[in-house]
Amino acid sequence: MPSADPAPLLVVLDLVGIFVFAISGALVAVRKELDLFGVLVLAGATGLGGGFVRDVLIGAVPPAALADWRYLLVPAVAGVTAFFVHPTLGRWERQVNVFDAFGLALFCVVGALKASAYGLEVVPAALMGMLTGIGGGMLRDVLAGRVPVIFRGELYATPALAGAALAVGGVELGLPVVVVAPVAAAVCLVWRLLALWRGWQAPLPRGSASV
Amino acid sequence: MPSADPAPLLVVLDLVGIFVFAISGALVAVRKELDLFGVLVLAGATGLGGGFVRDVLIGAVPPAALADWRYLLVPAVAGVTAFFVHPTLGRWERQVNVFDAFGLALFCVVGALKASAYGLEVVPAALMGMLTGIGGGMLRDVLAGRVPVIFRGELYATPALAGAALAVGGVELGLPVVVVAPVAAAVCLVWRLLALWRGWQAPLPRGSASV
Amino acid sequence: MPSADPAPLLVVLDLVGIFVFAISGALVAVRKELDLFGVLVLAGATGLGGGFVRDVLIGAVPPAALADWRYLLVPAVAGVTAFFVHPTLGRWERQVNVFDAFGLALFCVVGALKASAYGLEVVPAALMGMLTGIGGGMLRDVLAGRVPVIFRGELYATPALAGAALAVGGVELGLPVVVVAPVAAAVCLVWRLLALWRGWQAPLPRGSASV
Repeated sequence: MPSADPAPLLVVLDLVGIFVFAISGALVAVRKELDLFGVLVLAGATGLGGGFVRDVLIGAVPPAALADWRYLLVPAVAGVTAFFVHPTLGRWERQVNVFDAFGLALFCVVGALKASAYGLEVVPAALMGMLTGIGGGMLRDVLAGRVPVIFRGELYATPALAGAALAVGGVELGLPVVVVAPVAAAVCLVWRLLALWRGWQAPLPRGSASV
Repeated sequence: MPSADPAPLLVVLDLVGIFVFAISGALVAVRKELDLFGVLVLAGATGLGGGFVRDVLIGAVPPAALADWRYLLVPAVAGVTAFFVHPTLGRWERQVNVFDAFGLALFCVVGALKASAYGLEVVPAALMGMLTGIGGGMLRDVLAGRVPVIFRGELYATPALAGAALAVGGVELGLPVVVVAPVAAAVCLVWRLLALWRGWQAPLPRGSASV
Repeated sequence: MPSADPAPLLVVLDLVGIFVFAISGALVAVRKELDLFGVLVLAGATGLGGGFVRDVLIGAVPPAALADWRYLLVPAVAGVTAFFVHPTLGRWERQVNVFDAFGLALFCVVGALKASAYGLEVVPAALMGMLTGIGGGMLRDVLAGRVPVIFRGELYATPALAGAALAVGGVELGLPVVVVAPVAAAVCLVWRLLALWRGWQAPLPRGSASV
């Protein structure tokens, strides 16, 4: 089993990503008029869900977040914050989306490298990286009773898959992880920010949908 | 790995809790006009789902319920019962809620102690205990196509978290489990029954929800 | 841990089953007007979801599909195919249902035997076999925002449970697996095809549903 002692910078980045994802989950809960508990659960599910699903699938249980109180405190703080100051956060939606893109870039790379460290090959590890990035949002939407927004045209998963694939592919080719990881995260981040800025959409099926 | 030989009384209580949860799942399925199979699945998911999710997260697989036929028989009996006598059960909704509170009190304490026995620290173990109590109902609601009712103001998860936290906290402080567990379960039970009786609600976000 | 070197014929059958299930998932996504990514995720979730849930519950992680690129390629091909030729596939719905019945028959038997090989007893192993057959479709429907269709009267899960129970029961009685498995799969298949042809329904609850 791989060492579980990541660099302090990585932990800080990870916690920032969880915080931003948790904010997005809490805002969905507030919009759905859920109570404080629902806000906290959606904050936690969005911030930690992707990593939990990945860890369960690759056999890394209990998930790291259950062994480190900071990973549980951060989504709780995000949930309580959103519960009380959601009108302000709502006005900052554009900025939240930008932070969310940072979270996505980080999660897809870290998730893919962790899956690779647990013995998965390149393609499944890249998929696990993508799942780390998008799984929390999917869980949030299922719990909130809506079809995941990332299935509805928003270009979100493709940058995550690209970043994850670059990260594990580069490491597989023998490139140093300190070079590969930032480049892969940057590709995901820039692609996602361009998609936000330009309104890029994922392709929709053509023709009659009444199959 | 901890011993899997709980006291007979605990097994009986556990089975009673599963039965009551399964009844609540089957009644939701009947209301949604699902077929017999849907009723059985929702009975099983509600009765066993919380424990399954906890066991998968803490690495206790296969879940204990899959190694003991009684844990599979009980939700099946509950499902078939509800399928045939649901009008009667509907009239007993108040009593079902009271039994459900017993199930919640039991599950949160047993779940928290099991997570603790698998090496989780106090806070994550308490969360796993709460998840054991509320996870089945959440799974029931997602499968039935509705937002989990426990996100909608009902005071349900907080008593579960309190009971779970008292149980693992007390054991951590060196108190004997035969004292801590009943006290923790009683706190959860009384709190939940008071919430039912007085109509206590969890707090809702203030102000415009149109963030 | 059991050997993971199944016969080539079984792998081919398995991939055919995954392909057909993935087509059904992709068609639901197209009907819901999801984008290409949503189509691919629903294809993958439907084709692989049942096996993933089974593997996580019996402790066979990472799931076999994550260690074999063919298991990831097949749902991707199915998703892309359905994305582009869905009007044609829609006209073939009857044939898709027949292939789906083959997939169900195969998955329930293979899933039950795998659970048995991981040490589960007859009843839980049969349930795991049924879950392998129906889990993908349930996950598809939850992600697509609808109550699982198999809860709504269609006779689908009962043939799967029968096939799974016959398979593990026969092996438990000492019968050779090369005899038991095809017979069990044939029972599931014929039952399911008859249900499709005759419009057999699972029983619905009687009386007022307004409990």
